Amino acid sequence: MNAMTPAERVEAAYDRIKSADRPEIWIHLRPRDEVLAEAARIHPALPLAGLTAAVKDNIDVAGLPTTAGAPSYAYRPDADAPAVARLRAAGAVVLGKTNLDQFATGLVGTRSPYGAVRNAWDPARISGGSSSGSAVAVALGIADIALGTDTAGSGRVPAALNGIVGVKPTKGLVPVTGAVPACYTLDCVTVFARDLRLARIAAEIVEGPHPADPLSRTGTQLPPPPARPRVAVPAPQHLESMADGWREAFDAAVTRLASTGVEIVEIDVTPLLQAAQLLYGGAFVAERYAAVGEHLDKHRHLIGTDLDPSVASIVLAGREKTAADWAADTARLAALGAAGHTALDGCSALLTPTTTWHPTLEEVAADPIGANARMGRFTNFANLLDYASLAVPAGFVDGLPFGVMFTGPAFSDRALAALAERFASPRLDLFVVGAHLTGQPLNAQLVQAGGTLVGPARTAGGYRLHALATEPPKPGLVRVTEGGPDAHAGTGGDTHAGGGTGTAIEGEIWRLPAAGFGALTAAVPAPMTIGTVELADGRHVSGFLVEPYAVENAPDITHFGGWRAYLTST
Amino acid sequence: MNAMTPAERVEAAYDRIKSADRPEIWIHLRPRDEVLAEAARIHPALPLAGLTAAVKDNIDVAGLPTTAGAPSYAYRPDADAPAVARLRAAGAVVLGKTNLDQFATGLVGTRSPYGAVRNAWDPARISGGSSSGSAVAVALGIADIALGTDTAGSGRVPAALNGIVGVKPTKGLVPVTGAVPACYTLDCVTVFARDLRLARIAAEIVEGPHPADPLSRTGTQLPPPPARPRVAVPAPQHLESMADGWREAFDAAVTRLASTGVEIVEIDVTPLLQAAQLLYGGAFVAERYAAVGEHLDKHRHLIGTDLDPSVASIVLAGREKTAADWAADTARLAALGAAGHTALDGCSALLTPTTTWHPTLEEVAADPIGANARMGRFTNFANLLDYASLAVPAGFVDGLPFGVMFTGPAFSDRALAALAERFASPRLDLFVVGAHLTGQPLNAQLVQAGGTLVGPARTAGGYRLHALATEPPKPGLVRVTEGGPDAHAGTGGDTHAGGGTGTAIEGEIWRLPAAGFGALTAAVPAPMTIGTVELADGRHVSGFLVEPYAVENAPDITHFGGWRAYLTST
Repeated sequence: MNAMTPAERVEAAYDRIKSADRPEIWIHLRPRDEVLAEAARIHPALPLAGLTAAVKDNIDVAGLPTTAGAPSYAYRPDADAPAVARLRAAGAVVLGKTNLDQFATGLVGTRSPYGAVRNAWDPARISGGSSSGSAVAVALGIADIALGTDTAGSGRVPAALNGIVGVKPTKGLVPVTGAVPACYTLDCVTVFARDLRLARIAAEIVEGPHPADPLSRTGTQLPPPPARPRVAVPAPQHLESMADGWREAFDAAVTRLASTGVEIVEIDVTPLLQAAQLLYGGAFVAERYAAVGEHLDKHRHLIGTDLDPSVASIVLAGREKTAADWAADTARLAALGAAGHTALDGCSALLTPTTTWHPTLEEVAADPIGANARMGRFTNFANLLDYASLAVPAGFVDGLPFGVMFTGPAFSDRALAALAERFASPRLDLFVVGAHLTGQPLNAQLVQAGGTLVGPARTAGGYRLHALATEPPKPGLVRVTEGGPDAHAGTGGDTHAGGGTGTAIEGEIWRLPAAGFGALTAAVPAPMTIGTVELADGRHVSGFLVEPYAVENAPDITHFGGWRAYLTST
Repeated sequence: MNAMTPAERVEAAYDRIKSADRPEIWIHLRPRDEVLAEAARIHPALPLAGLTAAVKDNIDVAGLPTTAGAPSYAYRPDADAPAVARLRAAGAVVLGKTNLDQFATGLVGTRSPYGAVRNAWDPARISGGSSSGSAVAVALGIADIALGTDTAGSGRVPAALNGIVGVKPTKGLVPVTGAVPACYTLDCVTVFARDLRLARIAAEIVEGPHPADPLSRTGTQLPPPPARPRVAVPAPQHLESMADGWREAFDAAVTRLASTGVEIVEIDVTPLLQAAQLLYGGAFVAERYAAVGEHLDKHRHLIGTDLDPSVASIVLAGREKTAADWAADTARLAALGAAGHTALDGCSALLTPTTTWHPTLEEVAADPIGANARMGRFTNFANLLDYASLAVPAGFVDGLPFGVMFTGPAFSDRALAALAERFASPRLDLFVVGAHLTGQPLNAQLVQAGGTLVGPARTAGGYRLHALATEPPKPGLVRVTEGGPDAHAGTGGDTHAGGGTGTAIEGEIWRLPAAGFGALTAAVPAPMTIGTVELADGRHVSGFLVEPYAVENAPDITHFGGWRAYLTST
């Protein structure tokens, strides 16, 4: 892809738009020729040169109408929102404006007179919202990057349901100027991408204070997590009432994170879930009325056509709350926030499922408010309590994407990305028999490479061990008998210098991130090699072997059964 | 005072309570014997050992009722508020609970069924409020330290009107747990003392996060102001409508601050004054209803007796505000705050008058709401916009105290104290004639001591100058003829070795803070001395002179008229 010119990328995007046949993604798609002309002027050295971008239609793009999902609300801004301007300045090309839950009020992607946005993986299911079109445009490979907004989870829920990454930065890091407010003091502009690295690059490009944004904040990013970070997960009772198979998928994600050397601690997330309830159940919904209530009041005759009935009912209910309600809810929120911080004390982040289920379009149509409420269980509290959050894919359930979220304190954005990187990186097992065993001289190499001990293991029969004349002393593991039909051949057979039929040799399995595994392998000195070892339980894993020349005159120590027993005897 | 034992200090305080005859200061005064017994147990090494403290009666002291100024509201707490507990742990003895504007709603000190608190300097005038009793107890020398609270200026206005120091820390630095909320998210617990140093010591003792306070904040104090700080003052149009003589008093304070080497910049404080209007004019007053509205609703029959009518009308009006009003006001406040920060950009603080007038009790009785509104012009915005603020005395107008305030961003508490110290410290003039002149080798000593150049000056006639054999070379200034009746005698007369009648010698006047002046003097090496020099305009200022032995064989360079002319000639 990197070899394509900006113009070729734009051509490919429009081809993909055509073949994907999801017109509901767009509220306004720019003409192909106009975008091509713009792409032709992009300097190829820019960091996002020629990457295609989609912008949620509650964020201003100069010259295109901003509808916020309501035709009656449309206005035509003269200037790009700062976040859009920064993406463009970095070389991205805006394809158009994407569909959304009207006024960014919803987590479903169906509350729009421009049509429900269908899921990228299963058109019978919802895309999630409110940044529905942006997420699906990225998931379908149309846009490389998309901007969304997130007040209750709108930048994360659709990421999870479409199998992509959603970055919800610390409040105030990305200017909200030029975005139609949902809850003005809670809104965040967010970034979608298919992979974490591009998502973070784009997020850092759109971040930074802006003089026109009174809510801009500057602050120092928290340090990266320690080598053995502690990550909180909700206690089991808070993980009930999820879709079939989702609890197991989350447990697998927790196991996967733990396998990277992260210490997992179960915490009581009651204060966070109670805070989440305040977003729609408390007085803060009045911010939605303050933002667009006047428009709804003036256009009540359009409810059911231009204006979504669910959205209208939520926003107009905001009028009923008193300022004293707000004051009381603010005090309650402060107490819940403090309790939440106490619960998370000592943890680098909280890991949760991003949402709790993935309904069909029909299920949402049957119960628009109730179905939506279930979506925000783990996302609603983040902005209220000033957390940063990062949604990443975590496998599949019944063939549909499942996602998890790392959530941490304000300015933990980069720390969360480091945890997600650790989580997302594949882990590889390595069988060691000598100097890399726990307590032996080279064991630190495994730890430094991010390795964790899986446990002791032994080879299948048919291996012999030699004491090599290396420094530090190492054993050479050599296979002398063929394995079963699935086994990889060893370095020799019955003809091996040491003679005999071989036996099972003791060792340990270590699990390393792929990058660490690669670095370790590249640094292994002759005569050692990394090959495949058959274990006693029939599994085949990578493991230390040795070049044949090195064992020709090396003492055969097979009868000790392992390196530690040999060392004890000498 | 420091030589007194805690018990002696308590005895003196109760004697002073009796002689001052201001019973309205106290809502609950502890029995002398009980306080004496407590004082006897205080370890003399504690930082506040035996200092007497008064606590505003909206802050809990274990075992004493907390009324918040309303007998019907009283409860009896089991525990000290954290701020009280910290003062006591540092050795302070609490004398009792002080009167206040009911529910801390007011800046006048008259809104209390326990009686209006009369000003410490003029009993016909108001004390200012709402921390009225606390401020007057300190001003009258009864308590060394007092705790107040400040939402709209209650910890600063009474400091100004009674001629003492009021520390309003950054929001969240001092726990508000155990204080009856006025506006829960805006309240600060404050400290009064007669001098800045004790006020800051006490403030640092009560500061620090507390697990029971969800609004506790931690943060790093901003660095101290630079050697040449920039301080903002309101543009002239914002200083209109003050009491007679107050504008002149403020101008004098600005001149005094500028004379310490501070650069003064006039700024447009419109955004701050507009934000101030939102405290009572906007929806935030609903926090007062959320705090005590239920109590007022239930006890309407007590309005006019137990409950103050002005306070009740303000608090109950908070019920009428909607949450959408709150949302709109919050957005407006954010914009005003950003504009205010821009206006103050590059400045270490804003200097303002603390309040705008000092009414009589009768004037406030005639117009309780209007008179009060004039008090908060420069204080109302601080907590809304997250500023720290420090009120200090700045002289007198018509025999009554006048005060100014240093206000700066969150966590500027210590920087504000450094500016106030600079402002409060007396400045002393020093006449220099040689190596300390601008551009000469020792001039840096003056700058390091905090000195600023007043300008060139010359002595009266009758002085002679000698070139001394010092390193670096210095001149020795010697008076050879008597001055007028007010003049101090020189080191010699007509009998001086150099002979002649002497002449006027050129030099410079530098102005130094007293501490810097003292340090410089202490470090002056022989044969140099600091004495008094008569200037050509008849003033007498401190200046460098010389011990007589040093000029006996030193060349007389008087005919050059000054050190610079002599240097040029050699």
